[in-house]
Amino acid sequence: MEEKLIVIGGTAAGLSAASKARRLSPGLDIKVFEKSGYVSYGACGLPYFIGGLIKEPAELIAVTADELSMKRNIPTYIHHEVTKIDKAGKTVTVRNLKTQEVNVHPYDKLVIATGAVPIRPQIPGIDAEGVYYLRTVEDGILLKERVAVKGQTAAIIGGGFIGLEMAEEMTRAGVAVHIYEKMERLLPFLDPDFSEQIRTVLEQHGVSVHLGADVTELAIKGSSVCAVRTAGGSMQAVDFVLLSIGVLPASGLAGQAGLRLGLKGGIVVDETMQTDAADTWACGDCVEMKHIVTGSPVYVPLGTTANKQGRIAGENLAGGVERFPGVLGSMVTQVFGMTIAATGLSVEQAKESGFHAVSSVITKADRASYYPGGRPNTISLILDKRSGRLLGAQGIGSESIAGRINVFAAAITAGMTVAQINDLDLVYAPPVAPVYDPILIAASQAMKKVE
Amino acid sequence: MEEKLIVIGGTAAGLSAASKARRLSPGLDIKVFEKSGYVSYGACGLPYFIGGLIKEPAELIAVTADELSMKRNIPTYIHHEVTKIDKAGKTVTVRNLKTQEVNVHPYDKLVIATGAVPIRPQIPGIDAEGVYYLRTVEDGILLKERVAVKGQTAAIIGGGFIGLEMAEEMTRAGVAVHIYEKMERLLPFLDPDFSEQIRTVLEQHGVSVHLGADVTELAIKGSSVCAVRTAGGSMQAVDFVLLSIGVLPASGLAGQAGLRLGLKGGIVVDETMQTDAADTWACGDCVEMKHIVTGSPVYVPLGTTANKQGRIAGENLAGGVERFPGVLGSMVTQVFGMTIAATGLSVEQAKESGFHAVSSVITKADRASYYPGGRPNTISLILDKRSGRLLGAQGIGSESIAGRINVFAAAITAGMTVAQINDLDLVYAPPVAPVYDPILIAASQAMKKVE
Repeated sequence: MEEKLIVIGGTAAGLSAASKARRLSPGLDIKVFEKSGYVSYGACGLPYFIGGLIKEPAELIAVTADELSMKRNIPTYIHHEVTKIDKAGKTVTVRNLKTQEVNVHPYDKLVIATGAVPIRPQIPGIDAEGVYYLRTVEDGILLKERVAVKGQTAAIIGGGFIGLEMAEEMTRAGVAVHIYEKMERLLPFLDPDFSEQIRTVLEQHGVSVHLGADVTELAIKGSSVCAVRTAGGSMQAVDFVLLSIGVLPASGLAGQAGLRLGLKGGIVVDETMQTDAADTWACGDCVEMKHIVTGSPVYVPLGTTANKQGRIAGENLAGGVERFPGVLGSMVTQVFGMTIAATGLSVEQAKESGFHAVSSVITKADRASYYPGGRPNTISLILDKRSGRLLGAQGIGSESIAGRINVFAAAITAGMTVAQINDLDLVYAPPVAPVYDPILIAASQAMKKVE
Repeated sequence: MEEKLIVIGGTAAGLSAASKARRLSPGLDIKVFEKSGYVSYGACGLPYFIGGLIKEPAELIAVTADELSMKRNIPTYIHHEVTKIDKAGKTVTVRNLKTQEVNVHPYDKLVIATGAVPIRPQIPGIDAEGVYYLRTVEDGILLKERVAVKGQTAAIIGGGFIGLEMAEEMTRAGVAVHIYEKMERLLPFLDPDFSEQIRTVLEQHGVSVHLGADVTELAIKGSSVCAVRTAGGSMQAVDFVLLSIGVLPASGLAGQAGLRLGLKGGIVVDETMQTDAADTWACGDCVEMKHIVTGSPVYVPLGTTANKQGRIAGENLAGGVERFPGVLGSMVTQVFGMTIAATGLSVEQAKESGFHAVSSVITKADRASYYPGGRPNTISLILDKRSGRLLGAQGIGSESIAGRINVFAAAITAGMTVAQINDLDLVYAPPVAPVYDPILIAASQAMKKVE
């Protein structure tokens, strides 16, 4: 009889695992169960769907459940929720959310790729109508319909990457946007000056930015949210609210089955993505990760990681020996034409991890001074002042900052010191970079902080 | 008495050395002699001055000789040619090219930063009027005046980076351009498909591309060039000719003084930029370099290297202990909106150096597939198929390829394998990169070539 693989979750991690397993084990009997109505969608593209740059949800979907089932021999069931894992009996219980039919499916191997769920703060009004999240395609469709109504005012609660991207996209769609961040600055893991630049660009584009603003209540009129109240007592009338204060691992199912959970409830896996349950792998936003620099647990749910971990889980359940090396938390976003990117540790994280951490900030144009159109790149390097080793890098400015932060990601991974980075032979041409690339200026300045 | 430093050459390398020495040794008596009428100019910006994007030569000049002399305490003499170095007596002989006055100046320390000279092929007609080079500001002013005449046809001989940039800029200025390359393809150190892409984009913009075209004669009418003849016998009538078949170290002065010369006549220096003559450093386009990957001598004259070497020479003559680690030959250019970049060894160079070299080519969009405006990046990786170590990388496509090639430059410097590069945690957002960055796709494909 054929070996049975069940995959719980049909987005980045789950389908990467299923696809890899399918390629390596043509005889494997695979079933993918996905709770929502969509699989294989680019969740990171949802803000641009709301803003209108992407017209149809179908554009975000790489492959449908039907195509997976029919063409790729990966039978995939949408609207099917796994409600129980029996790790001793090696079965999962699955409810068809359309028919409410429940079935128990045996497995030989199991992949848990249940993703993450948005954090819902326990404040009055949180369950009212007009409170939106942005995680699934269904969320996106609902929010896009809402955004399309003319003349509205909305609150975005949470000034992280999704909150910032949505501030731009909702403004673009004609909504008057108020953004609320509990901390004293936006993206608080970034250099303070970066946060200030982001605030400025948001305000220049008409977004009202509320910092140090702890939203304590969503006021209700009838059954719908009508205003946002902060701890300071201020009230802002709104037509709807988007909550984007972060996500947590969707690990309830794994926890109930007795699998070991770690940081923030992320499923604990080893480097091969195996859990502590027999023949069971987990991958993507539902697992705890390891930081490359510190070796400590960290939870940075990102699409890049989910794809890679899924592929590794798929490889290994099919008999491979791939290892996931951990994460640097490398990320990038764009807000009103300003690009913001980061990799590795912030100075606070580095200090908490026991490094003698300092940061060093430079600003330099991204083209030769005499070549028209240069735009500033501001780069903050986080280093250990005793060893000179690079621990983190953050950048803000033109689009080219993304490539520069990737160079630092490679350098951190290789364990380079800022002096070694200063010696790098990088490309130069007047339209593309100054003769001393901002990377080299940043490294050279950081060298002065090494003791 | 104050120690005397003489610097021969007032562009990137020479002034970097003089400036660093001035900062570190406030008492040093510095004199910089520059043969031309300009110092501290961005030679790499000359094509854009010809094309009109940069209006005045002054824009290319970071600092004038007067400012250096008056404000920075670096007395700098333009139109002063050093005609002799007496290494035993520690003097240089200097001719004022305006007055023809000759003086002998003693030195305690000497920096030779004489740069490079364009290669002049020994073919009939090479000394005719209407034959241009592009190396100095004076060259640029003459060529810009010539290009301004309406309705002209010109030949560019040499399809390297300068030839390609000038093909675009002269076309932009209204000249009908024929480009001649002796080899069977443009930029022959690149992947053959890249050469073909460049030819296509040039032809789409009206440039006539002649490959395998060895120019054997410049025909003359009166005293001026009037046509270009190739080995095959074809003739093309032209109004003027730009020669850009490369440069050689301007090391005649050093050679006459008995300093050791190496590859292509480049002055031999150690890692501290010291020559084999006492108290004598050399830096920039006049020296032989060491390749980081092979450790072998190489001659890749670039502005980035000249600046760094100059700074290191200045540091060391002032008592420092800086070392220049060598070059990867990292370079980038843009031709009609197409960006071309490379670092490290080509597959041919790698084979010649004894590596078991193979290349692996991929093409991938530079944005998420569903995000509008993505443009292809084609990347060729050169690796050792036994160890998997990355030896070189070449890219062509959108501007973001420059940052990607810099990531590979860092990876080569760190000695990374393609498997290690495949594990890099890089930034991702739909407008900036696909979830699997082209860097990762390139590494993943290259892994399949490792034995």
